[in-house]
Amino acid sequence: MDLQQIVDDTWNALADERGSGTPAGYIPALAQVDPTKFGIAIATRDGSVFCAGDADEQFSIQSVSKVFALAMALDREGAALWEAVGREPSGNPFNSIVQLEREKGKPRNPFINSGAIVTTDRFIGDRGPDEAVADLLSRLHNMARDTRITIDEDVARSESETGARNRSLAYFMADFGRLLNPVEDVLSVYFRQCGIAMSCRQLAEASLFLAFDGTDPVTGLTMCSTERARRINALMLLCGHYDNSGEFAFDVGFPGKSGVGGGILASVPGRATLAVWSPGLNRAGTSLLGARALAQIADRTGWSVFSGTFEKS
Amino acid sequence: MDLQQIVDDTWNALADERGSGTPAGYIPALAQVDPTKFGIAIATRDGSVFCAGDADEQFSIQSVSKVFALAMALDREGAALWEAVGREPSGNPFNSIVQLEREKGKPRNPFINSGAIVTTDRFIGDRGPDEAVADLLSRLHNMARDTRITIDEDVARSESETGARNRSLAYFMADFGRLLNPVEDVLSVYFRQCGIAMSCRQLAEASLFLAFDGTDPVTGLTMCSTERARRINALMLLCGHYDNSGEFAFDVGFPGKSGVGGGILASVPGRATLAVWSPGLNRAGTSLLGARALAQIADRTGWSVFSGTFEKS
Amino acid sequence: MDLQQIVDDTWNALADERGSGTPAGYIPALAQVDPTKFGIAIATRDGSVFCAGDADEQFSIQSVSKVFALAMALDREGAALWEAVGREPSGNPFNSIVQLEREKGKPRNPFINSGAIVTTDRFIGDRGPDEAVADLLSRLHNMARDTRITIDEDVARSESETGARNRSLAYFMADFGRLLNPVEDVLSVYFRQCGIAMSCRQLAEASLFLAFDGTDPVTGLTMCSTERARRINALMLLCGHYDNSGEFAFDVGFPGKSGVGGGILASVPGRATLAVWSPGLNRAGTSLLGARALAQIADRTGWSVFSGTFEKS
Amino acid sequence: MDLQQIVDDTWNALADERGSGTPAGYIPALAQVDPTKFGIAIATRDGSVFCAGDADEQFSIQSVSKVFALAMALDREGAALWEAVGREPSGNPFNSIVQLEREKGKPRNPFINSGAIVTTDRFIGDRGPDEAVADLLSRLHNMARDTRITIDEDVARSESETGARNRSLAYFMADFGRLLNPVEDVLSVYFRQCGIAMSCRQLAEASLFLAFDGTDPVTGLTMCSTERARRINALMLLCGHYDNSGEFAFDVGFPGKSGVGGGILASVPGRATLAVWSPGLNRAGTSLLGARALAQIADRTGWSVFSGTFEKS
Repeated sequence: MDLQQIVDDTWNALADERGSGTPAGYIPALAQVDPTKFGIAIATRDGSVFCAGDADEQFSIQSVSKVFALAMALDREGAALWEAVGREPSGNPFNSIVQLEREKGKPRNPFINSGAIVTTDRFIGDRGPDEAVADLLSRLHNMARDTRITIDEDVARSESETGARNRSLAYFMADFGRLLNPVEDVLSVYFRQCGIAMSCRQLAEASLFLAFDGTDPVTGLTMCSTERARRINALMLLCGHYDNSGEFAFDVGFPGKSGVGGGILASVPGRATLAVWSPGLNRAGTSLLGARALAQIADRTGWSVFSGTFEKS
Repeated sequence: MDLQQIVDDTWNALADERGSGTPAGYIPALAQVDPTKFGIAIATRDGSVFCAGDADEQFSIQSVSKVFALAMALDREGAALWEAVGREPSGNPFNSIVQLEREKGKPRNPFINSGAIVTTDRFIGDRGPDEAVADLLSRLHNMARDTRITIDEDVARSESETGARNRSLAYFMADFGRLLNPVEDVLSVYFRQCGIAMSCRQLAEASLFLAFDGTDPVTGLTMCSTERARRINALMLLCGHYDNSGEFAFDVGFPGKSGVGGGILASVPGRATLAVWSPGLNRAGTSLLGARALAQIADRTGWSVFSGTFEKS
Repeated sequence: MDLQQIVDDTWNALADERGSGTPAGYIPALAQVDPTKFGIAIATRDGSVFCAGDADEQFSIQSVSKVFALAMALDREGAALWEAVGREPSGNPFNSIVQLEREKGKPRNPFINSGAIVTTDRFIGDRGPDEAVADLLSRLHNMARDTRITIDEDVARSESETGARNRSLAYFMADFGRLLNPVEDVLSVYFRQCGIAMSCRQLAEASLFLAFDGTDPVTGLTMCSTERARRINALMLLCGHYDNSGEFAFDVGFPGKSGVGGGILASVPGRATLAVWSPGLNRAGTSLLGARALAQIADRTGWSVFSGTFEKS
Repeated sequence: MDLQQIVDDTWNALADERGSGTPAGYIPALAQVDPTKFGIAIATRDGSVFCAGDADEQFSIQSVSKVFALAMALDREGAALWEAVGREPSGNPFNSIVQLEREKGKPRNPFINSGAIVTTDRFIGDRGPDEAVADLLSRLHNMARDTRITIDEDVARSESETGARNRSLAYFMADFGRLLNPVEDVLSVYFRQCGIAMSCRQLAEASLFLAFDGTDPVTGLTMCSTERARRINALMLLCGHYDNSGEFAFDVGFPGKSGVGGGILASVPGRATLAVWSPGLNRAGTSLLGARALAQIADRTGWSVFSGTFEKS
């Protein structure tokens, strides 16, 4: 299978539609990104990365960071994390508070905002916020073998300034005693984590552990246990795109996690990780071109966790 | 891999816990079933079936029938079915009406009751109810190569007599113009389909198409296209256990669909189909022992769609 | 106070706007009513009735009938009725099912559809449906001293044929064991009661008991106890216009109950009852001109239960 | 009518049950109040005040303050206030956020917490928070002719420290652009207003404007227009006790507003204002003994806005 050819064909097939969808505009740093950007990267077991377009330009990964925060919180907390956050699809938009009220402040899963805030709280643990952020960055540097991964402080500051809804969610959970750390401490980490800047290449490389049972096959670094890696994939498939997750599982057929910066990270267990980036979003907040690129790659490669014939490499 | 050994080990490991959970008691025909029944069957590509316990005793498949109804409705309607029913997890119990009110009578997915009623309506199409039921039975006979599969008319009648909630859901959707056939015609098929009686062996054999891209590898019969088979698996993984689907995906790692009769059907794409039966249910209405048996089989076989190492046969 | 002058002034002030609002169109019998009809009647303690416009033409009273059904159910059941139906505003539209799901099938109050269906069920009691309907009509004849009050069977039949939502509500409650009689029996009375045809004059006369502590000051007939009459007024004020009740209490200042036929019944305790009719409805399903007429009458008379100066007659 | 006798009889009839109900315990200042406190005061047109029990001891008026905040916000903003907050019962508990999400951050009415926060925001207007608080206190001093009314700073501080839910509501609304002032400024006034300490006597005297069309008959001071006073009464009747308002209107029959400090303020238009205080609350957060005292006073006086015979003084 010629993955470089597949990546190129996919990019070319969609290139004319760059700029479709609606970029997130709630903070200046996102609104100012060139909407025609479009990058694709596929990383495989042997360390190869197949790229097209703007795959080496960093963008704000936003909610894609929830995958890393979850892996690291699980690493710190173990199964106790699941007392703080559920593992079920929410059936609601990413920032809904309705479910929280009905279920006494316990978020449905780690990929909706409320669940990610709790996950971040547990990832911080008994450290200070800055130490937690440093730990997160350092892990990403190691996994991606690239120390240029950084936090866009402008984005983080803007997130905080416009973060009334997330603040509301956090205080709501605090009211139910769901947070261990002070609300503003948790949010300070949460907003910085949303502001992490990575390229498609860095994203695909940093997340190989997802496709290979918890251990990066290139560096040999273990991010989490086999069982936990599989479970993170399960959660991504079920909840990675909020109330658009079914559509994504349906069209693409493998786990993914989207961010409003236009990035999507996907995992094909046993084969590869994929990262795509195009700022224009669909109605559900997922990159429009990105989701279509992944569907085309799924078609061209035959990769699908639901396939009866697809062979692992 | 010695599947007979795995099936036997699993059965033996759980045999002492037969009778745990709470059998469905809303109709006499279900309440009278011996709660200690426990059967397991695994069917594979070459026609082998590995069984343990009460795998040859028929039980009421209840909501497991939604998988067959969906496959057959898709076969009749094609993608137009998705205008009548969604493809997203509902985040609610199986018989919730809240989501229906918010979304103008369009059910979230084909595996909650409202969605299954719409699916049945489309499967009936412009035929009479009896013709639709005959068609469904005949397909099951062919797929399972077993004409003993039948409808338990006692169960169907009891379902109808106690079916106030399902009647409410159906009239609610009718109020939004969502049904093509008269409510009572649709329900007459729906209740009979819930009353289908099959054994674990029959269930595993009849559903091999799910694990092998739409075509039964033993009979060569095609139930649906490759793409549709994959998508039914996706829906089973995301929505097959109502608001317990995340937990199941998490613990078991492959698609499944449960019924309140205590049966669970599961599919391991490329490998096998599995059927388990034990009447006692957990809080979410899934067979307690059945779910544990599947989790043990997943552990013993390494089967998981999220695994980075699992090789297809 | 010259009530005839006030009634005439109000009618004249609004006459040019006859035809505004949107008449209910869900059944032919309502859609065919002349939308420019406009009638007003005020009945007082001494048997006088002050009328303007089409006050002597009968129309379909629809949900206004819920007031009579409630008074008569209370008469049969006493306070036990409140175990079957609540006494709180619902904060939702008249036919919402969301609240029913959350509160186990117990309706919030007797004036939303679900609550009226339960009330009708209790009013039927252990009699047959036809006997209950005959009892209701006979009481209206006596209270209004007018045997021309009748049931429009065309309307009742249409209501039943298009009544999928009400059927859904009824089956939903039946599923929770909330109904004593078979669903179709209850609905047969409910739909006929909605189809009662009365004129403004008849409506105002039949409901004097509301304004005078349960006993009609003209006929001397007692409909219910003093305490119950006051409580029906309280419920009308709090819940008489679904999720528009606050607006009505705010603008008009005394208890009322609207119907989608365009009628509104109102009660000024100690003074009078009022009935207005104009088929065009506002967004919340209350007669547009009717509500404005009542607000003008409130202004012109100074009648308000919240007034610090208003003196009873 | 001997009001002193009625007040004494009511106090004596309930004295043995002092201490029933559950005092609010979420802040120390409330938890430490002697639970057996029980005071009653009735103020009438001519300046008389009829008291029993602990009617001269100050307590934390909590949500009763929402009545004063509403009157003063209406005075500043006029009808424009109703673009910021609705006038309908919410059908939900006082601190529910569900309705806010469904209705884009606009609270249902000024007496649920979210609505009171918006009302406070408008009452502040373009002044600083401290100036607004000073204005509120000064008005209370004038209306009650008593400068001992003050803010319990301990209570206000505790409210703020434990106010995660209210903070969540405020940020939620801020996210929808519903607040003119910074969240923390609004809350600083809101928490201080909840911490106002008044006695039953002061409360009854300060609120006579409610029963007398906006103007205090003793001091001659006008708090708001006739129309607005009536409307505040309407809102109190419909929404003054959250999802227990129907019950209260039913049992008591005139407008009231409760606070979790155990106080209830009530208004009998044309007759009197009443204030009761007993710290133990019922399930809905209203003073248990207080509500019963008001019901007894209603019985003994015959006061009810729904009565057909009750004559104004």
